[in-house]
Amino acid sequence: MTTSADSSFYEIGAGAEIAPNVLLGYRYPGCRLPTKIGTRARIHSGTVIYADTVIGERFTCGHNVTIRAECEIGDRVVILHGCTLEGRLKLGKGVKLMAHIYLPSSTVIGSMVFIGPGTTFLNARYPMREPVVRGATVGNHVVIGGGVTIGPGITIGDNVFIGAGATVLKDIPANSLAYGSPAKHKPLPEKFGTRNDPRQIFCGLDLWDNRPTDDTWQDEDFPGRG
Amino acid sequence: MTTSADSSFYEIGAGAEIAPNVLLGYRYPGCRLPTKIGTRARIHSGTVIYADTVIGERFTCGHNVTIRAECEIGDRVVILHGCTLEGRLKLGKGVKLMAHIYLPSSTVIGSMVFIGPGTTFLNARYPMREPVVRGATVGNHVVIGGGVTIGPGITIGDNVFIGAGATVLKDIPANSLAYGSPAKHKPLPEKFGTRNDPRQIFCGLDLWDNRPTDDTWQDEDFPGRG
Amino acid sequence: MTTSADSSFYEIGAGAEIAPNVLLGYRYPGCRLPTKIGTRARIHSGTVIYADTVIGERFTCGHNVTIRAECEIGDRVVILHGCTLEGRLKLGKGVKLMAHIYLPSSTVIGSMVFIGPGTTFLNARYPMREPVVRGATVGNHVVIGGGVTIGPGITIGDNVFIGAGATVLKDIPANSLAYGSPAKHKPLPEKFGTRNDPRQIFCGLDLWDNRPTDDTWQDEDFPGRG
Repeated sequence: MTTSADSSFYEIGAGAEIAPNVLLGYRYPGCRLPTKIGTRARIHSGTVIYADTVIGERFTCGHNVTIRAECEIGDRVVILHGCTLEGRLKLGKGVKLMAHIYLPSSTVIGSMVFIGPGTTFLNARYPMREPVVRGATVGNHVVIGGGVTIGPGITIGDNVFIGAGATVLKDIPANSLAYGSPAKHKPLPEKFGTRNDPRQIFCGLDLWDNRPTDDTWQDEDFPGRG
Repeated sequence: MTTSADSSFYEIGAGAEIAPNVLLGYRYPGCRLPTKIGTRARIHSGTVIYADTVIGERFTCGHNVTIRAECEIGDRVVILHGCTLEGRLKLGKGVKLMAHIYLPSSTVIGSMVFIGPGTTFLNARYPMREPVVRGATVGNHVVIGGGVTIGPGITIGDNVFIGAGATVLKDIPANSLAYGSPAKHKPLPEKFGTRNDPRQIFCGLDLWDNRPTDDTWQDEDFPGRG
Repeated sequence: MTTSADSSFYEIGAGAEIAPNVLLGYRYPGCRLPTKIGTRARIHSGTVIYADTVIGERFTCGHNVTIRAECEIGDRVVILHGCTLEGRLKLGKGVKLMAHIYLPSSTVIGSMVFIGPGTTFLNARYPMREPVVRGATVGNHVVIGGGVTIGPGITIGDNVFIGAGATVLKDIPANSLAYGSPAKHKPLPEKFGTRNDPRQIFCGLDLWDNRPTDDTWQDEDFPGRG
């Protein structure tokens, strides 16, 4: 058989905490480079990460996550339990994906983005009828609620809030609040502010981690809303 | 590394059936007590249960379930494949969670509650914008359909029925039928009755278990509708 | 304990590629026959397939898939990551299930059907109130989008397209386009054509498989739209 886990096919930085039953450097026919992961990663049981994927510093990963090949994932990203990242996609810095999220190939997510649990992104408008794949593009400082469906090729601007359970089938401009099925949008009310709070990702990374919080990040490391 | 599985960090009652590749007593930094599980548990492969979680008698658990720390789970609970329980939440007695359900921290579910597959509960109204976590509270003898999204802090009364695919963003009073996105509600039609049938949980716990059914429960062990 | 994996309780054809941490022939009380899988199967890590299930040739299966007992699955089926098939259900030939799909018992899917990620099928109209289980029946050359909920007992005709995020609570006749929550339908526009393209399943089975594509299928092997 040609698909296999090979314990020598990944490179990981100092301070990693890897649980039992994690497969890093998962091989596929034609794979080229080992999985690369930065320093201080924490990866929980049942997770698989393919070869040819590159992940930044201080990666936090839950249980039973599948990250396939050719993903580019920034620093200080959190991906929780049961998520699937199909490969050939990009996540910026400080992205937090809650559990049970599906991201298909060609999705591009900016920095400081939060996505709620059970949210599904799509990349094919007429699957099985035309061979076109086009994922969504999401800006910076976006909050997408749980149980949301994001259609193929959708563009979501910076500082957008999408309500729980929405079905987003049209582009959403920056600084909007979107909700409903199909989603409508209006200007984001002022009380929402303009940026996500990095302390909610970087400090107390996990309810179940009582160690000192991460205070090494600098606000200017992360993009503003424009 | 500090996160690890430790086969000595759980206590389980007599008659347990634990499949291969199950992690009980999953440790995290600051964990204190072993996982405690009552008698006659059946736990299928790929499941992880954290330290500091307590589960009652006759627990039935599917494949690839993640149950994190400080959960309090009653007797005769069934949790099927791929569910995630984020920890610090409560389930009463006789709760049946179908597959692919997500329950965040601070959720409180009563007794004799059924939740359909692919349903997502939320606990943050403005994630990344305000640090407030407030899960839903669900009464007794509730039926929540599949593919449902339940918003943060929602209260659902006793003997409520929620239709498939609903998005519930407002409280639902007892003895109601709720449906749609966003969900509306009306009084529960009389034909629905007032209580869930314990025989549908306790007898023939699993389509794939042909052993004699459990006839030891007493109807009065479980709460009525009020 | 009686539930266990038994490496001798399955039969698989030539050319199989089985990843680490796959359980085939998963036993349950009362199981009778070994899992049977045709030639050239590829099965990724974390997947469990029960005894008494039969799968055809050239099966492609992702990570952390659970397929329970008494399933009948045709040739050239693709099932991606995190799907759950509850058992006692049927899939025709050339079915492609994207990730995070839930199919309950008594579901019947035709041939050349595509189902998008995060889609949930149901089989109980009044769970816990009446002991009736009736799954959906789906025709041939159907495309069901992602994030969809399909109600219990629903019949979906041949050559139906269901839009992303729909909630389908009524039958959909053949040659229709259905969309919305609850779903409405209208005749399928001519530009959609009448059949799914087998090349999108059979050639380039997986983005991460760079081996020569499968050109052994014959168009007449697969049913037309009627």
